[in-house]
Amino acid sequence: MPAAFSKGVIAPCLTPFNADFSVDVGRFTETSLRLLEDGCVALAPFGTTGEALSLGLDERRRLLEALVEAGAPPNRLLPGTGLCSLPDTVALSRHAAELGCAGVMTLPPFYFKSVSEEGLFAYYAGLIDKIGHDALRVYLYHIPQIAGVGLPVPLVKRLFDAFPDQVVGVKDSSGDWENAKALMQIKGLTVYPASEARLREALDLGAGGSISATANLQAGRLAALVAAHDSADEASASALQAEAAAFRLAMQKYPFIEGQKAYLAATTGDAGWARVRPPLVAWTVERGAALRDEVADLAP
Amino acid sequence: MPAAFSKGVIAPCLTPFNADFSVDVGRFTETSLRLLEDGCVALAPFGTTGEALSLGLDERRRLLEALVEAGAPPNRLLPGTGLCSLPDTVALSRHAAELGCAGVMTLPPFYFKSVSEEGLFAYYAGLIDKIGHDALRVYLYHIPQIAGVGLPVPLVKRLFDAFPDQVVGVKDSSGDWENAKALMQIKGLTVYPASEARLREALDLGAGGSISATANLQAGRLAALVAAHDSADEASASALQAEAAAFRLAMQKYPFIEGQKAYLAATTGDAGWARVRPPLVAWTVERGAALRDEVADLAP
Repeated sequence: MPAAFSKGVIAPCLTPFNADFSVDVGRFTETSLRLLEDGCVALAPFGTTGEALSLGLDERRRLLEALVEAGAPPNRLLPGTGLCSLPDTVALSRHAAELGCAGVMTLPPFYFKSVSEEGLFAYYAGLIDKIGHDALRVYLYHIPQIAGVGLPVPLVKRLFDAFPDQVVGVKDSSGDWENAKALMQIKGLTVYPASEARLREALDLGAGGSISATANLQAGRLAALVAAHDSADEASASALQAEAAAFRLAMQKYPFIEGQKAYLAATTGDAGWARVRPPLVAWTVERGAALRDEVADLAP
Repeated sequence: MPAAFSKGVIAPCLTPFNADFSVDVGRFTETSLRLLEDGCVALAPFGTTGEALSLGLDERRRLLEALVEAGAPPNRLLPGTGLCSLPDTVALSRHAAELGCAGVMTLPPFYFKSVSEEGLFAYYAGLIDKIGHDALRVYLYHIPQIAGVGLPVPLVKRLFDAFPDQVVGVKDSSGDWENAKALMQIKGLTVYPASEARLREALDLGAGGSISATANLQAGRLAALVAAHDSADEASASALQAEAAAFRLAMQKYPFIEGQKAYLAATTGDAGWARVRPPLVAWTVERGAALRDEVADLAP
Protein backbone atom coordinates (compact mmCIF):
# COMPACT_ATOMS: atom_id res chain seq x y z
CA MET A 1 0.00 0.00 0.00
CA PRO A 2 1.61 3.30 -1.00
CA ALA A 3 1.84 6.15 1.49
CA ALA A 4 -1.27 8.30 1.40
CA PHE A 5 0.18 11.46 2.82
CA SER A 6 1.90 14.53 1.54
CA LYS A 7 4.29 16.94 3.18
CA GLY A 8 3.35 17.85 6.68
CA VAL A 9 3.55 17.09 10.32
CA ILE A 10 3.75 13.61 11.78
CA ALA A 11 3.11 13.00 15.46
CA PRO A 12 5.23 10.56 17.45
CA CYS A 13 2.27 9.50 19.57
CA LEU A 14 2.57 9.42 23.35
CA THR A 15 1.68 6.09 24.95
CA PRO A 16 -0.75 6.35 27.89
CA PHE A 17 -0.74 3.77 30.67
CA ASN A 18 -3.35 2.35 33.02
CA ALA A 19 -2.86 2.30 36.78
CA ASP A 20 -1.22 -1.15 36.51
CA PHE A 21 1.13 0.22 33.82
CA SER A 22 -0.47 -1.78 31.05
CA VAL A 23 -1.06 0.30 27.91
CA ASP A 24 -4.34 2.19 27.93
CA VAL A 25 -5.29 1.03 24.46
CA GLY A 26 -8.53 3.00 24.24
CA ARG A 27 -6.94 6.29 25.20
CA PHE A 28 -4.01 5.58 22.88
CA THR A 29 -6.17 5.03 19.80
CA GLU A 30 -8.53 7.88 20.63
CA THR A 31 -5.72 10.40 21.15
CA SER A 32 -3.83 9.21 18.10
CA LEU A 33 -6.87 9.49 15.83
CA ARG A 34 -7.49 12.99 17.14
CA LEU A 35 -3.99 13.96 16.02
CA LEU A 36 -4.95 12.96 12.49
CA GLU A 37 -8.14 15.02 12.77
CA ASP A 38 -6.06 17.93 14.01
CA GLY A 39 -4.10 17.90 10.78
CA CYS A 40 -1.22 15.47 11.15
CA VAL A 41 -0.56 13.85 7.78
CA ALA A 42 0.58 10.66 9.49
CA LEU A 43 1.34 9.10 12.86
CA ALA A 44 4.61 7.65 14.09
CA PRO A 45 3.70 5.47 17.06
CA PHE A 46 6.56 3.79 18.94
CA GLY A 47 9.13 6.54 18.66
CA THR A 48 11.30 7.69 21.54
CA THR A 49 8.48 10.00 22.70
CA GLY A 50 6.13 7.00 22.68
CA GLU A 51 8.38 5.13 25.12
CA ALA A 52 8.67 2.46 22.45
CA LEU A 53 11.62 0.71 24.01
CA SER A 54 9.64 0.29 27.23
CA LEU A 55 6.99 -1.71 25.35
CA GLY A 56 7.15 -5.43 24.70
CA LEU A 57 7.07 -6.92 21.21
CA ASP A 58 3.55 -8.27 21.64
CA GLU A 59 2.33 -4.97 23.06
CA ARG A 60 3.60 -3.13 20.01
CA ARG A 61 1.92 -5.52 17.60
CA ARG A 62 -1.40 -5.40 19.44
CA LEU A 63 -1.33 -1.59 19.72
CA LEU A 64 -0.65 -1.16 16.03
CA GLU A 65 -3.50 -3.50 15.19
CA ALA A 66 -5.77 -1.65 17.60
CA LEU A 67 -4.91 1.62 15.93
CA VAL A 68 -5.87 0.25 12.52
CA GLU A 69 -9.02 -1.37 13.90
CA ALA A 70 -9.98 1.97 15.44
CA GLY A 71 -9.84 3.55 12.01
CA ALA A 72 -6.32 4.85 11.44
CA PRO A 73 -5.47 4.33 7.77
CA PRO A 74 -2.41 2.05 7.71
CA ASN A 75 -0.95 4.05 4.83
CA ARG A 76 -0.72 7.00 7.21
CA LEU A 77 1.24 5.05 9.85
CA LEU A 78 5.01 4.96 10.32
CA PRO A 79 5.53 2.82 13.42
CA GLY A 80 8.93 2.54 15.06
CA THR A 81 10.27 -1.01 14.82
CA GLY A 82 13.95 -0.72 15.68
CA LEU A 83 15.40 -2.97 18.37
CA CYS A 84 18.94 -4.24 18.71
CA SER A 85 18.45 -7.67 17.14
CA LEU A 86 17.64 -8.47 13.54
CA PRO A 87 15.14 -11.29 14.31
CA ASP A 88 12.90 -9.10 16.47
CA THR A 89 13.30 -5.99 14.32
CA VAL A 90 12.42 -8.08 11.27
CA ALA A 91 9.37 -9.48 13.05
CA LEU A 92 8.01 -6.04 13.98
CA SER A 93 8.83 -4.55 10.58
CA ARG A 94 7.23 -7.40 8.67
CA HIS A 95 4.14 -7.15 10.82
CA ALA A 96 3.89 -3.44 10.01
CA ALA A 97 4.44 -4.03 6.28
CA GLU A 98 1.81 -6.76 6.24
CA LEU A 99 -0.66 -4.44 7.97
CA GLY A 100 -0.12 -2.04 5.08
CA CYS A 101 1.77 0.62 7.01
CA ALA A 102 3.30 3.41 4.94
CA GLY A 103 6.69 2.63 6.38
CA VAL A 104 8.69 1.74 9.44
CA MET A 105 10.96 4.04 11.42
CA THR A 106 14.02 2.03 12.37
CA LEU A 107 16.76 2.77 14.89
CA PRO A 108 20.22 1.39 14.35
CA PRO A 109 21.00 -1.53 16.69
CA PHE A 110 21.95 0.54 19.71
CA TYR A 111 23.53 -1.83 22.20
CA PHE A 112 27.02 -2.16 20.76
CA LYS A 113 28.78 1.19 20.56
CA SER A 114 31.54 2.42 18.23
CA VAL A 115 30.45 0.05 15.50
CA SER A 116 31.59 0.59 11.93
CA GLU A 117 29.65 2.03 9.02
CA GLU A 118 30.18 -1.32 7.31
CA GLY A 119 28.52 -3.14 10.21
CA LEU A 120 25.55 -0.77 10.28
CA PHE A 121 25.15 -1.07 6.53
CA ALA A 122 25.13 -4.87 6.86
CA TYR A 123 22.50 -4.63 9.58
CA TYR A 124 20.08 -2.62 7.44
CA ALA A 125 20.85 -4.72 4.37
CA GLY A 126 20.05 -7.82 6.40
CA LEU A 127 16.83 -6.24 7.65
CA ILE A 128 15.60 -5.44 4.14
CA ASP A 129 16.64 -8.82 2.80
CA LYS A 130 15.05 -10.85 5.61
CA ILE A 131 11.78 -8.95 5.55
CA GLY A 132 11.60 -9.46 1.80
CA HIS A 133 8.30 -7.60 1.47
CA ASP A 134 7.66 -5.42 -1.57
CA ALA A 135 5.68 -2.96 0.51
CA LEU A 136 8.49 -2.33 2.98
CA ARG A 137 9.53 1.31 3.26
CA VAL A 138 12.21 2.18 5.80
CA TYR A 139 12.72 5.56 7.47
CA LEU A 140 16.13 5.59 9.16
CA TYR A 141 15.95 6.94 12.69
CA HIS A 142 18.93 9.10 13.66
CA ILE A 143 18.94 10.03 17.35
CA PRO A 144 22.55 9.56 18.47
CA GLN A 145 22.20 11.43 21.77
CA ILE A 146 19.78 8.76 23.03
CA ALA A 147 20.66 5.66 21.02
CA GLY A 148 24.39 6.15 21.50
CA VAL A 149 24.76 5.06 17.87
CA GLY A 150 24.13 7.42 14.97
CA LEU A 151 23.67 7.13 11.23
CA PRO A 152 26.24 9.41 9.59
CA VAL A 153 25.24 11.14 6.35
CA PRO A 154 27.56 9.01 4.15
CA LEU A 155 25.94 5.85 5.54
CA VAL A 156 22.45 7.20 4.86
CA LYS A 157 23.53 8.04 1.32
CA ARG A 158 25.00 4.58 0.83
CA LEU A 159 21.83 2.87 2.07
CA PHE A 160 19.62 5.10 -0.08
CA ASP A 161 21.76 4.35 -3.15
CA ALA A 162 21.77 0.61 -2.48
CA PHE A 163 18.06 0.24 -1.64
CA PRO A 164 16.25 3.16 -3.31
CA ASP A 165 12.91 1.34 -3.25
CA GLN A 166 13.05 0.53 0.48
CA VAL A 167 15.11 3.23 2.18
CA VAL A 168 12.98 6.25 1.47
CA GLY A 169 13.50 8.62 4.35
CA VAL A 170 15.22 9.73 7.54
CA LYS A 171 13.94 11.05 10.81
CA ASP A 172 16.75 13.26 12.06
CA SER A 173 16.32 13.80 15.79
CA SER A 174 19.92 14.82 16.35
CA GLY A 175 19.00 18.48 16.74
CA ASP A 176 21.99 19.21 14.50
CA TRP A 177 20.68 21.52 11.79
CA GLU A 178 23.82 21.10 9.67
CA ASN A 179 23.21 17.36 9.64
CA ALA A 180 19.58 17.84 8.61
CA LYS A 181 20.64 20.19 5.83
CA ALA A 182 23.20 17.70 4.54
CA LEU A 183 20.54 14.98 4.50
CA MET A 184 18.11 17.24 2.63
CA GLN A 185 20.70 17.56 -0.12
CA ILE A 186 20.30 13.85 -0.92
CA LYS A 187 17.94 14.08 -3.87
CA GLY A 188 14.85 11.91 -3.55
CA LEU A 189 15.29 11.19 0.16
CA THR A 190 12.46 12.33 2.45
CA VAL A 191 13.87 14.02 5.53
CA TYR A 192 11.98 14.79 8.73
CA PRO A 193 13.89 17.06 11.10
CA ALA A 194 12.61 16.41 14.61
CA SER A 195 12.15 20.02 15.61
CA GLU A 196 9.43 22.26 14.28
CA ALA A 197 11.44 25.30 15.35
CA ARG A 198 12.71 25.64 11.77
CA LEU A 199 9.90 23.86 9.94
CA ARG A 200 9.37 26.60 7.38
CA GLU A 201 13.04 26.66 6.49
CA ALA A 202 13.07 22.86 6.33
CA LEU A 203 10.10 22.85 3.95
CA ASP A 204 11.92 25.35 1.74
CA LEU A 205 14.88 22.99 1.67
CA GLY A 206 12.65 20.10 0.60
CA ALA A 207 11.95 18.38 3.90
CA GLY A 208 8.99 16.02 4.12
CA GLY A 209 7.80 18.02 7.10
CA SER A 210 8.65 17.19 10.69
CA ILE A 211 8.20 14.37 13.15
CA SER A 212 8.27 16.37 16.32
CA ALA A 213 7.59 15.48 19.95
CA THR A 214 5.43 18.53 20.55
CA ALA A 215 3.23 17.67 17.56
CA ASN A 216 1.37 15.80 20.31
CA LEU A 217 0.30 19.20 21.69
CA GLN A 218 0.32 21.63 18.79
CA ALA A 219 -0.65 19.52 15.78
CA GLY A 220 -3.28 21.96 14.57
CA ARG A 221 -0.94 24.93 14.68
CA LEU A 222 1.74 23.03 12.81
CA ALA A 223 -0.76 21.87 10.17
CA ALA A 224 -1.84 25.48 9.70
CA LEU A 225 1.79 26.48 9.34
CA VAL A 226 2.34 23.90 6.60
CA ALA A 227 -0.88 25.01 4.85
CA ALA A 228 0.16 28.67 4.99
CA HIS A 229 3.57 27.74 3.63
CA ASP A 230 2.04 25.69 0.81
CA SER A 231 -0.28 28.51 -0.20
CA ALA A 232 2.56 31.03 -0.03
CA ASP A 233 0.79 33.00 2.68
CA GLU A 234 4.09 34.28 4.03
CA ALA A 235 2.61 36.51 6.72
CA SER A 236 0.60 33.70 8.30
CA ALA A 237 3.43 31.21 7.85
CA SER A 238 5.85 33.56 9.53
CA ALA A 239 3.53 34.22 12.48
CA LEU A 240 2.71 30.53 12.93
CA GLN A 241 6.37 29.56 12.71
CA ALA A 242 7.21 32.03 15.45
CA GLU A 243 4.42 30.70 17.67
CA ALA A 244 5.29 27.06 17.05
CA ALA A 245 8.97 27.66 17.72
CA ALA A 246 8.27 29.59 20.91
CA PHE A 247 6.10 26.79 22.29
CA ARG A 248 8.62 24.16 21.29
CA LEU A 249 11.50 26.03 22.90
CA ALA A 250 9.50 26.51 26.11
CA MET A 251 8.62 22.82 26.27
CA GLN A 252 12.09 21.55 25.48
CA LYS A 253 13.47 23.01 28.70
CA TYR A 254 12.02 19.84 30.24
CA PRO A 255 12.02 16.18 29.26
CA PHE A 256 9.44 15.76 26.50
CA ILE A 257 7.83 12.55 27.70
CA GLU A 258 7.32 13.28 31.39
CA GLY A 259 6.61 16.96 30.71
CA GLN A 260 4.04 16.50 27.94
CA LYS A 261 2.27 13.70 29.79
CA ALA A 262 1.98 15.74 32.99
CA TYR A 263 0.88 18.72 30.90
CA LEU A 264 -1.91 16.57 29.46
CA ALA A 265 -2.79 15.32 32.94
CA ALA A 266 -3.20 18.94 34.02
CA THR A 267 -5.03 20.18 30.93
CA THR A 268 -7.38 17.21 30.52
CA GLY A 269 -8.03 16.72 34.23
CA ASP A 270 -7.12 13.07 33.77
CA ALA A 271 -4.31 12.36 36.23
CA GLY A 272 -3.58 9.01 34.58
CA TRP A 273 -1.96 10.77 31.65
CA ALA A 274 1.08 11.53 33.82
CA ARG A 275 2.09 7.87 34.07
CA VAL A 276 5.35 6.72 32.46
CA ARG A 277 7.06 3.37 32.57
CA PRO A 278 10.32 2.94 34.51
CA PRO A 279 13.14 3.83 34.16
CA LEU A 280 11.34 7.15 33.60
CA VAL A 281 9.77 8.78 36.65
CA ALA A 282 6.37 10.43 36.36
CA TRP A 283 5.89 14.08 37.06
CA THR A 284 3.12 14.97 39.48
CA VAL A 285 -0.02 16.56 38.08
CA GLU A 286 0.92 19.66 40.09
CA ARG A 287 4.18 19.91 38.21
CA GLY A 288 2.27 19.47 34.96
CA ALA A 289 -0.06 22.30 36.00
CA ALA A 290 2.94 24.52 36.72
CA LEU A 291 4.29 23.75 33.24
CA ARG A 292 0.88 24.46 31.72
CA ASP A 293 0.83 27.83 33.49
CA GLU A 294 4.42 28.56 32.51
CA VAL A 295 3.74 28.10 28.79
CA ALA A 296 0.12 29.33 28.82
CA ASP A 297 0.85 32.38 26.69
CA LEU A 298 2.57 30.21 24.06
CA ALA A 299 0.24 27.21 23.98
CA PRO A 300 -2.01 26.65 20.99
CA MET B 1 16.48 -24.78 42.51
CA PRO B 2 19.40 -23.35 44.52
CA ALA B 3 22.67 -22.53 42.78
CA ALA B 4 24.94 -25.56 42.69
CA PHE B 5 28.22 -23.79 42.31
CA SER B 6 30.86 -22.34 44.55
CA LYS B 7 33.39 -19.59 43.98
CA GLY B 8 35.07 -19.75 40.65
CA VAL B 9 35.07 -18.79 37.05
CA ILE B 10 31.97 -18.34 34.96
CA ALA B 11 32.16 -18.18 31.17
CA PRO B 12 30.05 -15.71 29.19
CA CYS B 13 29.65 -18.18 26.31
CA LEU B 14 30.34 -17.08 22.76
CA THR B 15 27.46 -17.66 20.34
CA PRO B 16 28.47 -19.40 17.09
CA PHE B 17 26.52 -18.83 13.87
CA ASN B 18 25.79 -20.90 10.78
CA ALA B 19 26.47 -19.59 7.28
CA ASP B 20 22.95 -18.13 7.13
CA PHE B 21 23.58 -16.40 10.48
CA SER B 22 21.17 -18.60 12.38
CA VAL B 23 22.60 -19.80 15.68
CA ASP B 24 24.66 -22.98 15.41
CA VAL B 25 22.89 -24.67 18.28
CA GLY B 26 24.97 -27.84 18.24
CA ARG B 27 28.26 -26.01 18.36
CA PHE B 28 26.90 -23.68 21.04
CA THR B 29 25.87 -26.45 23.41
CA GLU B 30 28.98 -28.52 22.74
CA THR B 31 31.36 -25.64 23.36
CA SER B 32 29.46 -24.47 26.41
CA LEU B 33 29.45 -27.91 27.99
CA ARG B 34 33.18 -28.18 27.38
CA LEU B 35 33.67 -24.97 29.38
CA LEU B 36 32.02 -26.69 32.35
CA GLU B 37 34.30 -29.71 31.86
CA ASP B 38 37.27 -27.36 31.73
CA GLY B 39 36.45 -26.14 35.21
CA CYS B 40 33.96 -23.29 34.93
CA VAL B 41 31.64 -23.40 37.93
CA ALA B 42 28.80 -21.98 35.85
CA LEU B 43 27.93 -20.54 32.46
CA ALA B 44 26.58 -17.11 31.63
CA PRO B 45 25.10 -17.39 28.14
CA PHE B 46 23.67 -14.21 26.58
CA GLY B 47 26.13 -11.73 27.98
CA THR B 48 27.72 -8.97 25.92
CA THR B 49 30.38 -11.42 24.73
CA GLY B 50 27.62 -13.79 23.63
CA GLU B 51 26.14 -11.09 21.35
CA ALA B 52 22.95 -11.45 23.38
CA LEU B 53 21.38 -8.25 22.13
CA SER B 54 21.76 -9.51 18.56
CA LEU B 55 19.60 -12.53 19.37
CA GLY B 56 15.82 -12.58 19.24
CA LEU B 57 13.67 -13.46 22.22
CA ASP B 58 12.65 -16.81 20.79
CA GLU B 59 16.24 -17.65 19.89
CA ARG B 60 17.32 -17.02 23.46
CA ARG B 61 14.61 -19.22 24.90
CA ARG B 62 15.31 -22.07 22.48
CA LEU B 63 19.07 -21.89 23.05
CA LEU B 64 18.70 -21.99 26.81
CA GLU B 65 16.42 -25.00 26.53
CA ALA B 66 18.87 -26.66 24.13
CA LEU B 67 21.68 -26.13 26.63
CA VAL B 68 19.68 -27.82 29.37
CA GLU B 69 18.59 -30.65 27.06
CA ALA B 70 22.23 -31.17 26.11
CA GLY B 71 23.06 -31.76 29.76
CA ALA B 72 23.98 -28.41 31.30
CA PRO B 73 22.65 -28.39 34.89
CA PRO B 74 20.23 -25.45 35.09
CA ASN B 75 21.49 -24.59 38.54
CA ARG B 76 24.85 -23.81 36.98
CA LEU B 77 23.37 -21.37 34.45
CA LEU B 78 23.15 -17.57 34.74
CA PRO B 79 21.65 -16.43 31.44
CA GLY B 80 21.49 -12.77 30.51
CA THR B 81 17.90 -11.59 30.24
CA GLY B 82 18.13 -7.80 30.25
CA LEU B 83 16.39 -5.85 27.49
CA CYS B 84 14.98 -2.32 27.63
CA SER B 85 11.36 -3.22 28.29
CA LEU B 86 9.88 -4.80 31.39
CA PRO B 87 7.46 -7.12 29.53
CA ASP B 88 10.17 -8.81 27.47
CA THR B 89 12.74 -8.83 30.29
CA VAL B 90 10.12 -10.36 32.56
CA ALA B 91 9.32 -13.00 29.92
CA LEU B 92 12.95 -14.07 29.49
CA SER B 93 13.66 -13.98 33.22
CA ARG B 94 10.58 -15.99 34.12
CA HIS B 95 11.47 -18.55 31.48
CA ALA B 96 14.95 -18.91 33.01
CA ALA B 97 13.55 -19.17 36.54
CA GLU B 98 11.05 -21.81 35.44
CA LEU B 99 13.83 -23.80 33.79
CA GLY B 100 15.55 -23.85 37.18
CA CYS B 101 18.42 -21.53 36.31
CA ALA B 102 20.63 -20.44 39.20
CA GLY B 103 19.92 -16.83 38.36
CA VAL B 104 19.58 -14.24 35.64
CA MET B 105 22.08 -11.55 34.72
CA THR B 106 20.13 -8.40 34.02
CA LEU B 107 21.19 -5.17 32.33
CA PRO B 108 19.51 -1.91 33.27
CA PRO B 109 17.08 -0.70 30.58
CA PHE B 110 19.68 0.89 28.34
CA TYR B 111 17.78 2.94 25.76
CA PHE B 112 16.93 6.02 27.79
CA LYS B 113 20.05 7.78 29.07
CA SER B 114 20.59 9.99 32.11
CA VAL B 115 17.80 8.29 34.00
CA SER B 116 17.51 8.64 37.76
CA GLU B 117 18.43 6.16 40.45
CA GLU B 118 14.78 6.23 41.48
CA GLY B 119 13.71 5.20 37.97
CA LEU B 120 16.22 2.37 37.80
CA PHE B 121 15.18 1.16 41.24
CA ALA B 122 11.54 1.14 40.11
CA TYR B 123 12.50 -0.83 37.00
CA TYR B 124 14.19 -3.62 38.97
CA ALA B 125 11.45 -3.58 41.63
CA GLY B 126 8.90 -3.98 38.85
CA LEU B 127 10.88 -6.81 37.33
CA ILE B 128 11.03 -8.76 40.60
CA ASP B 129 7.39 -8.09 41.37
CA LYS B 130 6.09 -9.07 37.94
CA ILE B 131 8.13 -12.26 37.72
CA GLY B 132 6.89 -13.23 41.17
CA HIS B 133 8.83 -16.50 41.21
CA ASP B 134 10.39 -17.73 44.44
CA ALA B 135 13.34 -19.19 42.57
CA LEU B 136 14.29 -15.90 40.91
CA ARG B 137 17.84 -14.74 41.63
CA VAL B 138 19.04 -11.57 39.96
CA TYR B 139 22.63 -10.65 39.19
CA LEU B 140 22.80 -6.97 38.28
CA TYR B 141 24.87 -6.37 35.17
CA HIS B 142 26.98 -3.20 35.33
CA ILE B 143 28.64 -2.37 32.00
CA PRO B 144 28.20 1.39 31.59
CA GLN B 145 30.73 1.78 28.78
CA ILE B 146 28.54 -0.35 26.48
CA ALA B 147 25.03 0.02 27.92
CA GLY B 148 25.38 3.77 28.36
CA VAL B 149 23.53 3.33 31.65
CA GLY B 150 25.27 2.13 34.78
CA LEU B 151 24.25 0.88 38.21
CA PRO B 152 25.97 3.07 40.80
CA VAL B 153 27.06 1.42 44.04
CA PRO B 154 24.38 3.17 46.18
CA LEU B 155 21.68 1.83 43.84
CA VAL B 156 23.09 -1.69 44.06
CA LYS B 157 23.11 -1.40 47.84
CA ARG B 158 19.55 -0.13 47.87
CA LEU B 159 18.33 -2.98 45.66
CA PHE B 160 20.21 -5.56 47.73
CA ASP B 161 18.71 -4.14 50.94
CA ALA B 162 15.19 -4.06 49.51
CA PHE B 163 15.24 -7.50 47.85
CA PRO B 164 17.85 -9.58 49.70
CA ASP B 165 16.30 -12.86 48.56
CA GLN B 166 16.25 -11.93 44.86
CA VAL B 167 19.11 -9.51 44.23
CA VAL B 168 22.06 -11.69 45.13
CA GLY B 169 24.94 -10.51 42.99
CA VAL B 170 26.56 -8.12 40.55
CA LYS B 171 28.61 -8.64 37.44
CA ASP B 172 30.85 -5.59 37.30
CA SER B 173 32.17 -5.20 33.77
CA SER B 174 33.06 -1.55 34.20
CA GLY B 175 36.76 -2.29 34.42
CA ASP B 176 36.82 0.16 37.34
CA TRP B 177 38.61 -1.63 40.15
CA GLU B 178 37.57 0.94 42.75
CA ASN B 179 33.94 0.27 41.83
CA ALA B 180 34.43 -3.49 42.16
CA LYS B 181 36.09 -3.01 45.54
CA ALA B 182 33.23 -0.83 46.78
CA LEU B 183 30.73 -3.50 45.68
CA MET B 184 32.71 -6.22 47.44
CA GLN B 185 32.28 -4.30 50.68
CA ILE B 186 28.53 -4.93 50.57
CA LYS B 187 28.29 -7.87 52.93
CA GLY B 188 26.43 -10.84 51.50
CA LEU B 189 26.46 -9.63 47.90
CA THR B 190 28.23 -11.88 45.38
CA VAL B 191 30.43 -9.79 43.10
CA TYR B 192 31.95 -10.93 39.82
CA PRO B 193 34.53 -8.51 38.44
CA ALA B 194 34.71 -9.01 34.69
CA SER B 195 38.46 -9.18 34.41
CA GLU B 196 40.54 -12.08 35.61
CA ALA B 197 43.61 -9.82 35.66
CA ARG B 198 43.14 -9.35 39.42
CA LEU B 199 41.20 -12.52 40.18
CA ARG B 200 43.38 -13.53 43.12
CA GLU B 201 43.01 -10.14 44.74
CA ALA B 202 39.26 -10.23 44.08
CA LEU B 203 38.96 -13.63 45.73
CA ASP B 204 40.83 -12.29 48.76
CA LEU B 205 38.31 -9.46 48.94
CA GLY B 206 35.41 -11.92 48.89
CA ALA B 207 34.46 -11.93 45.19
CA GLY B 208 32.41 -14.83 43.86
CA GLY B 209 35.05 -15.31 41.20
CA SER B 210 34.91 -13.73 37.78
CA ILE B 211 32.69 -13.68 34.72
CA SER B 212 35.29 -12.89 32.13
CA ALA B 213 35.23 -12.78 28.33
CA THR B 214 38.46 -14.71 27.99
CA ALA B 215 37.15 -17.51 30.19
CA ASN B 216 36.02 -18.76 26.79
CA LEU B 217 39.68 -19.46 25.97
CA GLN B 218 41.46 -20.01 29.28
CA ALA B 219 38.85 -21.65 31.50
CA GLY B 220 41.16 -24.46 32.64
CA ARG B 221 43.92 -22.08 33.66
CA LEU B 222 41.51 -19.89 35.60
CA ALA B 223 39.99 -22.92 37.34
CA ALA B 224 43.49 -24.01 38.34
CA LEU B 225 44.15 -20.52 39.66
CA VAL B 226 41.04 -20.62 41.83
CA ALA B 227 41.96 -24.11 43.08
CA ALA B 228 45.50 -22.99 43.96
CA HIS B 229 44.08 -19.97 45.76
CA ASP B 230 41.60 -22.10 47.68
CA SER B 231 44.29 -24.54 48.81
CA ALA B 232 46.60 -21.68 49.75
CA ASP B 233 49.19 -22.77 47.23
CA GLU B 234 50.52 -19.26 46.91
CA ALA B 235 53.36 -20.07 44.53
CA SER B 236 51.07 -21.75 41.98
CA ALA B 237 48.36 -19.13 42.44
CA SER B 238 50.85 -16.36 41.84
CA ALA B 239 52.24 -17.98 38.69
CA LEU B 240 48.79 -18.77 37.28
CA GLN B 241 47.56 -15.26 38.04
CA ALA B 242 50.48 -13.79 36.13
CA GLU B 243 49.82 -16.07 33.15
CA ALA B 244 46.08 -15.42 33.14
CA ALA B 245 46.56 -11.68 33.39
CA ALA B 246 49.16 -11.63 30.61
CA PHE B 247 46.85 -13.51 28.23
CA ARG B 248 43.91 -11.32 29.13
CA LEU B 249 45.89 -8.12 28.61
CA ALA B 250 47.14 -9.36 25.25
CA MET B 251 43.62 -10.26 24.11
CA GLN B 252 41.98 -7.07 25.30
CA LYS B 253 43.98 -5.00 22.83
CA TYR B 254 41.29 -6.14 20.39
CA PRO B 255 37.52 -6.43 20.55
CA PHE B 256 36.73 -9.57 22.54
CA ILE B 257 33.96 -10.92 20.37
CA GLU B 258 35.46 -10.61 16.90
CA GLY B 259 38.95 -11.38 18.20
CA GLN B 260 38.09 -14.50 20.20
CA LYS B 261 35.85 -15.88 17.48
CA ALA B 262 38.52 -15.43 14.79
CA TYR B 263 41.08 -16.89 17.21
CA LEU B 264 38.87 -19.97 17.54
CA ALA B 265 38.40 -20.11 13.77
CA ALA B 266 42.18 -20.21 13.43
CA THR B 267 42.89 -22.64 16.26
CA THR B 268 40.05 -25.08 15.53
CA GLY B 269 40.38 -24.93 11.75
CA ASP B 270 36.66 -24.20 11.60
CA ALA B 271 36.29 -20.93 9.67
CA GLY B 272 32.63 -20.64 10.67
CA TRP B 273 33.65 -19.68 14.20
CA ALA B 274 34.63 -16.23 12.91
CA ARG B 275 31.05 -15.25 12.09
CA VAL B 276 29.40 -12.44 14.06
CA ARG B 277 26.04 -10.82 13.57
CA PRO B 278 25.81 -7.24 12.33
CA PRO B 279 26.44 -4.52 13.42
CA LEU B 280 29.66 -6.35 14.31
CA VAL B 281 31.97 -7.20 11.43
CA ALA B 282 33.75 -10.54 11.37
CA TRP B 283 37.50 -10.78 11.36
CA THR B 284 39.04 -12.93 8.67
CA VAL B 285 40.50 -16.26 9.70
CA GLU B 286 43.88 -14.86 8.65
CA ARG B 287 43.53 -12.08 11.17
CA GLY B 288 42.55 -14.66 13.78
CA ALA B 289 45.68 -16.65 12.91
CA ALA B 290 47.78 -13.53 13.32
CA LEU B 291 46.25 -12.96 16.75
CA ARG B 292 46.85 -16.60 17.65
CA ASP B 293 50.51 -16.21 16.68
CA GLU B 294 50.79 -12.90 18.52
CA VAL B 295 49.61 -14.38 21.83
CA ALA B 296 51.06 -17.87 21.32
CA ASP B 297 53.56 -17.57 24.17
CA LEU B 298 50.79 -16.51 26.56
CA ALA B 299 48.00 -18.86 25.50
CA PRO B 300 46.95 -21.71 27.77
